[in-house]
Amino acid sequence: MTLDGMIFVLDIAGIFVFAISGALAARQRQLDIFGGIVLALVTAVGGGTFRDLVLGVKPVFWVSEPVYVAVAGSAALFTFAVARRYVFPRRTLLVADAIGLAVFTLMGVQKALAYQVSPLIAIMLGVVTGVGGGLIRDVIVNEVPLILRREIYATAAFAGGLLFILLIAIGVMPRIATICGVLLVFTLRLAAIRWRWALPLHPAEGPEERR
Amino acid sequence: MTLDGMIFVLDIAGIFVFAISGALAARQRQLDIFGGIVLALVTAVGGGTFRDLVLGVKPVFWVSEPVYVAVAGSAALFTFAVARRYVFPRRTLLVADAIGLAVFTLMGVQKALAYQVSPLIAIMLGVVTGVGGGLIRDVIVNEVPLILRREIYATAAFAGGLLFILLIAIGVMPRIATICGVLLVFTLRLAAIRWRWALPLHPAEGPEERR
Amino acid sequence: MTLDGMIFVLDIAGIFVFAISGALAARQRQLDIFGGIVLALVTAVGGGTFRDLVLGVKPVFWVSEPVYVAVAGSAALFTFAVARRYVFPRRTLLVADAIGLAVFTLMGVQKALAYQVSPLIAIMLGVVTGVGGGLIRDVIVNEVPLILRREIYATAAFAGGLLFILLIAIGVMPRIATICGVLLVFTLRLAAIRWRWALPLHPAEGPEERR
Repeated sequence: MTLDGMIFVLDIAGIFVFAISGALAARQRQLDIFGGIVLALVTAVGGGTFRDLVLGVKPVFWVSEPVYVAVAGSAALFTFAVARRYVFPRRTLLVADAIGLAVFTLMGVQKALAYQVSPLIAIMLGVVTGVGGGLIRDVIVNEVPLILRREIYATAAFAGGLLFILLIAIGVMPRIATICGVLLVFTLRLAAIRWRWALPLHPAEGPEERR
Repeated sequence: MTLDGMIFVLDIAGIFVFAISGALAARQRQLDIFGGIVLALVTAVGGGTFRDLVLGVKPVFWVSEPVYVAVAGSAALFTFAVARRYVFPRRTLLVADAIGLAVFTLMGVQKALAYQVSPLIAIMLGVVTGVGGGLIRDVIVNEVPLILRREIYATAAFAGGLLFILLIAIGVMPRIATICGVLLVFTLRLAAIRWRWALPLHPAEGPEERR
Repeated sequence: MTLDGMIFVLDIAGIFVFAISGALAARQRQLDIFGGIVLALVTAVGGGTFRDLVLGVKPVFWVSEPVYVAVAGSAALFTFAVARRYVFPRRTLLVADAIGLAVFTLMGVQKALAYQVSPLIAIMLGVVTGVGGGLIRDVIVNEVPLILRREIYATAAFAGGLLFILLIAIGVMPRIATICGVLLVFTLRLAAIRWRWALPLHPAEGPEERR
């Protein structure tokens, strides 16, 4: 399989997995099937939508390529049908989510660079592509977003985006740099889950200040 | 009255009604008058704004046609002035809301088709135009959006958009197809309210999993 | 210093102050340092991003001018480093926030006018530029936005934008009108804090209707 083919497969896999995570969030809150489809779509394409909007891509990617919407909607229906009698193994979902995060981040960095933005902005938009959908999902279901809490998640995306930019800067071929970036995000994320790595909390403060 | 004239009247009526529903949401939460105006605007133009952004329409409709903002703002002030001594009849509001939903959805589908998107995306953007404002309103006031819960709401919009696409596909004139679509959304929505139709919940799960 | 130079300095100062307010919101909720950076960015550039999106500016301002992102990110790290042992004086933050509000609002009005929008929309987009970031910050951390509650905040921005439009309409030079608008927003905001001015609540209702 060519790199482009592989990226496409991973991209669709990422959409599928992120959509399932959105549908499962709907299940936990006892939303109806339409709520499940909405959260699946938001989680799967939310980050890329924001990236395309601020870059000025018109129309955004899923408007011109309906396959993404079709895959995300199918994943929601699949979750709805399967979840009746089956509990998704948490470990499988975490690995799949890490794949999605890694692929989306690197694709976001590359798309941003294709629009001639600076490296800092490219990395930032890569991170947004990777984590944005989950953030919007959590805001809609009325939770403080998980990724703002104590886990190495966006940080892994940031590291992978930075590695890609550095490798390109020293002349590495884009496809090699892409693979390295994807692997770094994926490995960091899995290691963080395995050994419970976390970022420092925002500075401690007296309990009387908390609320 | 021509169909275009009728659509314009219904469109403005939809803006007015959705704006009132936003202002009433502000009232329930004891926000100030500015909060009422913000929620009125968000509810009235939120869905269409998102549709225009992802389609790449520039600028979005209410920037080039300030009448929408003026109508929504007036509706908020009207609600503020009237609500002191008057309780809006719930039934009237539900019927008016159903009109808004029906008109906005069909206008959304048509605008999307004018930008050469695929039928699936056109229906989806129609639904977004119809339900998006209410969803953003609920997110801002910190509630899990009503439309993600157990009511036939977005589903009615979906059915109307689908009917329009099918009628166009078999050669029906656009204005006839529009009227059929609007009537289907409106009728489904009112029937759902009358007989308490609801979508199946997301699959049941043990109480220990609920929260 | 020229007016343009002064505006630039105030603009960067506004970004810095708004970013600190976002980072402090993260601290109060015990988010990690990444959460602090996200909230800092959202608060600092959220309003201007929405303005640029609806105007159809492509790409949005911080994509073409990475200095804004760099300043906001630095402010978050600064807050993280300093906040360990130092409580920011509330009065200083309020004054700084008022400066940010005033400058952002007037810049928003001017940018909107440069895109040939009507005066009503220009004022509205000025207000959005000034208050939008704080609103999105509050929605993300799951609070009913502060600015929708009982304080003269957006109202001060509205008054300043309106004054600018009126002065331009009677032939005052843009830079004079800008200074007048900025001063009005700033003065109104500080006076509102000093004397606890507030907008009327949305009409009172019986306690049984409250929730």
